[in-house]
Amino acid sequence: MTSLFVATFTALAGLGQSQTYQRLGTCPSLGCIFPPDQADFLAGQYFGIRLEVHAPRNGSEAIDRAPDEDFTFTLAKSGASPQSAEDFFSIKSPEIETWNFTWFEDLFARDADTPSLVQVASKAYRRLHINEPGEYTASLSYYNGSTTESTWTVRDIAQVRKAKNVILFIGDGMTTNMITAARLIAHKSINGKYQSLMQMDKFPILGHQMTHSIDTFITDSANSATALYTGHKSTVNALGVYADSSPNKFDDPKVETIAEIFHRVTGGHVGIVSTAYIADATPAALTAHTRDRGQYGAVIDSYLHGITNYTWTNWTGPDVLFGGGAENFFNSSLGGVSYMDKDYYAEFSNAGYQLVYNNTQLQGASNDEKALGIFSISNMAKWLDRNVYPDNLQGLENDPTGSGGDAIDQPGLKEMTLKAIDILNARSEDKGWLIMSEAASIDKMMHALDYDRALGELLELDDTIKATIAKLESLDSLKETLILVTADHGHGFDVAGSVDTKYLRAQDDQREKRDAIGTYQNSGMSQYVLTGNLSYSDGTYFPHNWGPRYTLYQGVIANPDRREDWRVRKDGPREPAVNATPAEDDYIVNPKDGKGGIIVNGTLPVNNAEGVHSLTDVPVFAMGPCQELFGGVYSAIDIFFGMAECLGLSQVNGEGEGDGNHHHWGGYSGNGWKHGPA
Amino acid sequence: MTSLFVATFTALAGLGQSQTYQRLGTCPSLGCIFPPDQADFLAGQYFGIRLEVHAPRNGSEAIDRAPDEDFTFTLAKSGASPQSAEDFFSIKSPEIETWNFTWFEDLFARDADTPSLVQVASKAYRRLHINEPGEYTASLSYYNGSTTESTWTVRDIAQVRKAKNVILFIGDGMTTNMITAARLIAHKSINGKYQSLMQMDKFPILGHQMTHSIDTFITDSANSATALYTGHKSTVNALGVYADSSPNKFDDPKVETIAEIFHRVTGGHVGIVSTAYIADATPAALTAHTRDRGQYGAVIDSYLHGITNYTWTNWTGPDVLFGGGAENFFNSSLGGVSYMDKDYYAEFSNAGYQLVYNNTQLQGASNDEKALGIFSISNMAKWLDRNVYPDNLQGLENDPTGSGGDAIDQPGLKEMTLKAIDILNARSEDKGWLIMSEAASIDKMMHALDYDRALGELLELDDTIKATIAKLESLDSLKETLILVTADHGHGFDVAGSVDTKYLRAQDDQREKRDAIGTYQNSGMSQYVLTGNLSYSDGTYFPHNWGPRYTLYQGVIANPDRREDWRVRKDGPREPAVNATPAEDDYIVNPKDGKGGIIVNGTLPVNNAEGVHSLTDVPVFAMGPCQELFGGVYSAIDIFFGMAECLGLSQVNGEGEGDGNHHHWGGYSGNGWKHGPA
Repeated sequence: MTSLFVATFTALAGLGQSQTYQRLGTCPSLGCIFPPDQADFLAGQYFGIRLEVHAPRNGSEAIDRAPDEDFTFTLAKSGASPQSAEDFFSIKSPEIETWNFTWFEDLFARDADTPSLVQVASKAYRRLHINEPGEYTASLSYYNGSTTESTWTVRDIAQVRKAKNVILFIGDGMTTNMITAARLIAHKSINGKYQSLMQMDKFPILGHQMTHSIDTFITDSANSATALYTGHKSTVNALGVYADSSPNKFDDPKVETIAEIFHRVTGGHVGIVSTAYIADATPAALTAHTRDRGQYGAVIDSYLHGITNYTWTNWTGPDVLFGGGAENFFNSSLGGVSYMDKDYYAEFSNAGYQLVYNNTQLQGASNDEKALGIFSISNMAKWLDRNVYPDNLQGLENDPTGSGGDAIDQPGLKEMTLKAIDILNARSEDKGWLIMSEAASIDKMMHALDYDRALGELLELDDTIKATIAKLESLDSLKETLILVTADHGHGFDVAGSVDTKYLRAQDDQREKRDAIGTYQNSGMSQYVLTGNLSYSDGTYFPHNWGPRYTLYQGVIANPDRREDWRVRKDGPREPAVNATPAEDDYIVNPKDGKGGIIVNGTLPVNNAEGVHSLTDVPVFAMGPCQELFGGVYSAIDIFFGMAECLGLSQVNGEGEGDGNHHHWGGYSGNGWKHGPA
Repeated sequence: MTSLFVATFTALAGLGQSQTYQRLGTCPSLGCIFPPDQADFLAGQYFGIRLEVHAPRNGSEAIDRAPDEDFTFTLAKSGASPQSAEDFFSIKSPEIETWNFTWFEDLFARDADTPSLVQVASKAYRRLHINEPGEYTASLSYYNGSTTESTWTVRDIAQVRKAKNVILFIGDGMTTNMITAARLIAHKSINGKYQSLMQMDKFPILGHQMTHSIDTFITDSANSATALYTGHKSTVNALGVYADSSPNKFDDPKVETIAEIFHRVTGGHVGIVSTAYIADATPAALTAHTRDRGQYGAVIDSYLHGITNYTWTNWTGPDVLFGGGAENFFNSSLGGVSYMDKDYYAEFSNAGYQLVYNNTQLQGASNDEKALGIFSISNMAKWLDRNVYPDNLQGLENDPTGSGGDAIDQPGLKEMTLKAIDILNARSEDKGWLIMSEAASIDKMMHALDYDRALGELLELDDTIKATIAKLESLDSLKETLILVTADHGHGFDVAGSVDTKYLRAQDDQREKRDAIGTYQNSGMSQYVLTGNLSYSDGTYFPHNWGPRYTLYQGVIANPDRREDWRVRKDGPREPAVNATPAEDDYIVNPKDGKGGIIVNGTLPVNNAEGVHSLTDVPVFAMGPCQELFGGVYSAIDIFFGMAECLGLSQVNGEGEGDGNHHHWGGYSGNGWKHGPA
């Protein structure tokens, strides 16, 4: 009967790739290789391999047998003979693992509660690396004749370090459309000519990166960060791993991140800064390896200890870790939810970190010691609330110590980033540094349809970039630092005109309210900036009036039910929809939001409380050594390869066993990067 | 009392700059200079000057006197003494003109029908030019002490020709978001890696251009085309002029276009191609000069005769004019609406043009003669209808001859553009050529919320670019041709997931239908492309299935009432809304559109039948000589200056009086451009 099985599931191969639900992303056939077909690697980059053989026992792919445990797996460099993985990597064969999982083939199956059962036989290989550039064929044979092949490419990148430092700014969810809107409300224009520009606008190199996931065309921030940091696209919710089907959320095959490689190979220093809770996906993906971004406690532990459940990169912690999310640091006695209920403030302190909890302490911190700065419970305050509506910081009981007080004295992205540079610059000496600085709440406020706050966060990011350039110049480090500004995905945002908010409120009829919208010749000019001759002598660019009569007619393409009055939310971040039937998650217009505005039903499933990510390519702005690598249109993974190339991290001739003191890769000679391009 | 007047209107200056309505764009004070403050010029570029002194007689700016007819106007190069315009340009002083106009100060005034009256005194100077780079101050003095100053910049651009030819592709309304969506439905991806890319993606240089108008932040296609072609931003609906307040639509101060300058200064040949009716704004702005883009007859006349009501550039017509809009060519006896009821087919024929009316004739046309190709009444057929649903071409009675037959054998943008290149290349010899090729219906279909047809048009544009590169290579002209691809404005479009159209239709309840939307991990991969191993051996990239079960969850941020089912419209372009009360223009959901879908009310004023333009910066892709001029972020006008620089059109030392035979500008030597950068 074996041949019949083969014929059956060969014919069905591909059915497992439904749209709404998938049996397992990147595995349309019944034999799965992770990393899958089309994976790219940096020479020497650590990674794991997961092999799975699937036996669907019911549903459209059903076969009448258990999963094949006698599958074989080989690797072959292009032109060479296949070798077993054991021979190829000189490792022992791992044990067979087995498990079951279920999935729904589509929404009808979900409604009928008829899941499909899949039995799995699997092996996993841990911490491998390939140092020779070229094409490799990974081949999984199973069910007596079926084969899944994956072509892998180890990119041929020269081992020449061109930058001492890299700072990667991520505007989470930031699109070109948002930059355009932010420019409009913060920069003065006379007769169609801007009198000042965004700092991003002045970058010499512009690129676009494609953000889609490996197995879906819309990404979340976990797997997009994984792509940016590892050169490997992954699955929604996955951090630094390819998502397998096993029940264990920590056994998925890992890929080494730019932070880990940089630290391991060069001994370079790492800084992590975010305005989100610091266990959030974008910072987490630098050191965490799990397919579940919700494992916040483990994420915090990984910052300090790296990966401990399997052999992995030796990691001794970042020099700087600044952000929110205090609840993942203190234990349950203070209301926290820390890993194993430990006191992570104490853990970091014991590891030599100075601890800072507010901006005053941050400014006073030593530049010579590692620093952990946690400034609030949950996400940090938004620029608009800190600077324009500070009363909104009161009463939140979000003090990072868990005292129950309010976190009033919070730094912004600029203050955190400049301090991070000071510390990294002082501590790294000739090793150089890598900083990731995230404007997280561009995304969070776009989710909430709070366009004004999102644009405020974007302008704060731009102000941070401007201050960073000045800081690097003052440290004489600008020419040896690659500065990248990009995003991890978009939101479908744009502006289509203006709103006469006075007229809107004066109309009673919903249809007549729509007449308040001015498009084309009636859109006018921005009233958020001063129109007189007053100069922006302080050199910072934010709106001078967040509540003009004529506001931006702005929105997103997909949202829950909402009421729009296109006025700034002075009482704090917007909550467009509320749950009418919590048992069912049925979100309707928040009766307290946008009073006097126009009610618009959404098209998102009614269990959505807020907006969602979008497809659009996002911009990349590059300045400094290697800037030329970042022009044009490319995949998100190319950001990783560009940074790795610029830092000289390709280990073509080494053994991938660097410990921070090895410099067995070519092109580096102490201060070699000091002679890079201007 | 004079001093009181002065004090009064000085205090009020700026009030005329309301948002929804403006007294006059670019003129917030009572003295107006066109070109206004911040205008940039190419050395030698022709332009006109309009001066206006306003006397608002009622409303918030009211003054108690008639407009000052004794105003004075001077010009001064930076560092030099002011001269009267008459001395500066060695011209005679024009006559004083006077007129009145009215405007509404805001929507309340409109509702109350209380217009504000403005009396005007004015002068206009025609066909001027400045050849010396530098800053100039234009100063208008009026009302015995008030002054309006404008700073003008004549850019210092070297007179070195680096490109023989320029082809400017305009995807009307095309954004990065749309390119991303088009890539997704037409290009196969395996595990997150595209197996092919858009031709645009492969361009070496990427830029963003800011599209806003001179006096409003949302542009239309007329004044955005003016910015791209003349280096001067203008007002909505204006073509090649600064919009003044006079009743005459043809007396506004003009600015010379890239086509006119190229033809005048170098004798270069021009081709104009569009899928719109050829009198539409984007092609029209190459030769027309009027503040009313709706003057279609005059636009057609300007293609052939140039500007005839005032002295202007000598213009002898483009070598190629291809598009739709036959109704502006034949007279009223055939149902046409041509200029002065003339037969413009005969006019063009008499001027030496071969006439072609369908693709067969186009392909058979001689490459040695000028060609007028008009292929349909109104806009040309869409790629999707021509190629996938050809039945939709039947019964439209849009034959370009006015016969009442159907225009079935229409060329696409690719066929028109390749033929244009053949003709221009054969005819221009060493003079070189400039072609503008417009994918007009990206915009027109986005307006109609017909996302699929819009993306089809975008893919046809990309296919045209690909074929153009191959054609230029075959003609050995690729290295001497600058290829630019950009847009003139955006629509607020994006994709946020997928739609299970089968599930959507199976639900009765509007809220339950929303469950058909899949976001993030449920968005899946594109089902528009083949998922098997079939190769795209023909090298063209369009969806293989426009009607998969799982479609794109796509939309725009601003629209009329509509019903969305996210399925391709097989019966022809979408009409989302219909006029429920034609006397009042009250558009509601088209009961025939999107049956079975989700009804969503819009937020646009209810007199809108379709979507509108948006704010976003749009991409610029550049390849060829001077490509480096087009990286980064800049204004739309910089496209003009880049093209002019590359073609060596800056006439710094000349007199601006070139007639096509003068080559008194430096850096050119017959085949000088043949040695430009590769």
